[in-house]
Amino acid sequence: MLAVGLEQAIHYIETLSFGERAIDYLTEHGFEEEFLSKLETLEFTGDVRALPEGEPVFPNEPLLEVTAPILQGQLLETIAINQIGYQSLIATKAARMRDTIERHGDDQSLVDFGSRRAHGSDAGMKAARAAYIGGFDGTSNVAAGEAFGIPIYGTMAHSWIQSFATERAAFEAFVDEYGEDSILLIDTYDTVAGAETARDVADKRDIDVAGVRLDSGNLTALSKEVNELLGDTDIFVSSGVDEFKIRDFLTSGGVGTGFGPGTALVTSTDAPKVEGVYKLVAIERDGEMRPSMKLSTGKATYPGAKSIYRVERDGSYAYDTLTPQKEDHDGDELLVSVIEDGDIVYDFPDLQTVQEFALRNVEKIPVEARTLENPTTYEVRISPELDTQTTELRQQLESQFT
Amino acid sequence: MLAVGLEQAIHYIETLSFGERAIDYLTEHGFEEEFLSKLETLEFTGDVRALPEGEPVFPNEPLLEVTAPILQGQLLETIAINQIGYQSLIATKAARMRDTIERHGDDQSLVDFGSRRAHGSDAGMKAARAAYIGGFDGTSNVAAGEAFGIPIYGTMAHSWIQSFATERAAFEAFVDEYGEDSILLIDTYDTVAGAETARDVADKRDIDVAGVRLDSGNLTALSKEVNELLGDTDIFVSSGVDEFKIRDFLTSGGVGTGFGPGTALVTSTDAPKVEGVYKLVAIERDGEMRPSMKLSTGKATYPGAKSIYRVERDGSYAYDTLTPQKEDHDGDELLVSVIEDGDIVYDFPDLQTVQEFALRNVEKIPVEARTLENPTTYEVRISPELDTQTTELRQQLESQFT
Repeated sequence: MLAVGLEQAIHYIETLSFGERAIDYLTEHGFEEEFLSKLETLEFTGDVRALPEGEPVFPNEPLLEVTAPILQGQLLETIAINQIGYQSLIATKAARMRDTIERHGDDQSLVDFGSRRAHGSDAGMKAARAAYIGGFDGTSNVAAGEAFGIPIYGTMAHSWIQSFATERAAFEAFVDEYGEDSILLIDTYDTVAGAETARDVADKRDIDVAGVRLDSGNLTALSKEVNELLGDTDIFVSSGVDEFKIRDFLTSGGVGTGFGPGTALVTSTDAPKVEGVYKLVAIERDGEMRPSMKLSTGKATYPGAKSIYRVERDGSYAYDTLTPQKEDHDGDELLVSVIEDGDIVYDFPDLQTVQEFALRNVEKIPVEARTLENPTTYEVRISPELDTQTTELRQQLESQFT
Repeated sequence: MLAVGLEQAIHYIETLSFGERAIDYLTEHGFEEEFLSKLETLEFTGDVRALPEGEPVFPNEPLLEVTAPILQGQLLETIAINQIGYQSLIATKAARMRDTIERHGDDQSLVDFGSRRAHGSDAGMKAARAAYIGGFDGTSNVAAGEAFGIPIYGTMAHSWIQSFATERAAFEAFVDEYGEDSILLIDTYDTVAGAETARDVADKRDIDVAGVRLDSGNLTALSKEVNELLGDTDIFVSSGVDEFKIRDFLTSGGVGTGFGPGTALVTSTDAPKVEGVYKLVAIERDGEMRPSMKLSTGKATYPGAKSIYRVERDGSYAYDTLTPQKEDHDGDELLVSVIEDGDIVYDFPDLQTVQEFALRNVEKIPVEARTLENPTTYEVRISPELDTQTTELRQQLESQFT
């Protein structure tokens, strides 16, 4: 996956506070004044290390490491998993679409059309941001464009067409307003007839329209037919687009200059969950930092603060090694310091820089580990020292019960 | 599905406005002053009819009908689909879990544990609300409890256990604070050993703890084993719970007094999308309201404002009929007036009333249409008048192209 969402998680950590309404509510629910006074004056004073946004991350690797008094650290669990999990999911889905296009030797535009089908308003906003980082060109969500500086795009709605007596009248009115920038939606009644009408309307004005959009039916077959009618007019394809549809469209000779993924992007329909966790890996007790782990069946964790080292060979990632934080190792250490003693010490790059970083990184993932069909598993090694620490702690914990 | 999310959609409609920052952004992006001045003074002046929250809705039936100047109506599309689609999805998922328990003759509690895995912060909040309407007892999301008046619940975290030198020390400290209200998480290291420790800790204090929680492993088998050890102590089951897991747990003799669904609830993992649409069905042109429809392959719509009539027999829904709005028909008309001339004319019931309404309604859906395995399709009839109008309009629209 691509690690994305750090900027939002850090913003939350830095602005976390409990106002009067929250304190009143908690008082009503029986929390004691001594505890609530700690919440009222709460301020994050700890350290955070994290993967930069756009860094690929593999199983068992930490995306965020918080060192802080346990009250502060514990309060971050829900929002950290929520923000980083979702954005990482969508950035990954987006990157798979961009990568599918690139591996086919193409360069179609990709625009997020998903806000209305996202799970709530925050998802609509964050999907636009995450998709951009994953290699999209922009979004149709204007609010996200404003909030995050993402390029905004749009075509026309079916309701525009339907609000006129005929499709022809709708196209004429639109072209008279937008001229050669027009992208005409041609499937409201009949896609091929719509393409002919679009051509007639443009010809009568002696202009070329920027493009047409297909939004239903057999997109591959229709795109070829429309391309024969309209020559080099751009064809923009929406309706159920994901990386698999893009692959099938391109390999079966579909003709398109852009795609508008929506629902499948923002809900990651075929894989809608990231089971990210936020776990205690060490605790200071009796003046000493002690490693900690869960042994729960299928949910065991590695103890202690960690580092991730990534080794590159010939411009490709060769393997990662997960180590205890202090261990030196071959490769590049990936976790960076973001907050120290409560202060941000990290310069968040702008979104375009993050996108460029992400795209360069995706290309370095061995191609056989990023194909859509039967990808191989990228190797994450556990360092001998981490392995030993894990085994020893497991034995020590199990001895409680014997 | 259960129709849910109306209150949030209406709130948005009533508070929709464009502030200075939005207008500045749109100005930079080339929108004309004449258009932007309309946005600056925008206020919803139209009518809204809708399904009350908690009303079951079937294919082709409208959940929300907006009659307004097209600029106003069009601006609502994204947020209306976003809010109503997601909450309806999650309320339905929740209702399937509640119904699975009831059809098994049981009454386990259901608590939403999903916020951290929801798609963004808004989804975390709205899932708690929707799940409550669908028959949940409450949520672990305290912010949602405060915002919507939902009962809040919680147990303990693995990090609580891990922050002590031993599981026993963690249980002791917790029980000393919470006494008989304690629900002890027993799977951090070894579930059965954890149950024994919980019993010892309670026995030494001569109290009964409220319950224990299982969060990993074979939940059915472990619940039986823990029940034999702890007698009538409540057993609360989390970890990957959905309606199918609940069914399997109950039918294979699992012993539990409550479930804490999380990821599978809030992402509706097995069916994470609702392809709701917001379509133009009529437009006033030349002083007359004219029906409108799309013919797009696989996406055709029925024209005109509609009514839904639902016929009940022997306390069960028999069938629905979709009609043009003005047509009289057998059964109860389901759409209610919510906004007239821009003013709310509808009393939103409190959340508990909505839940009771939803639960009564779910029971009226024929049981064979709500089983998890091979449910039948509930019948939605198209009235002869609507059918005729649809056919005539289709022919008229197709004649454009001949």
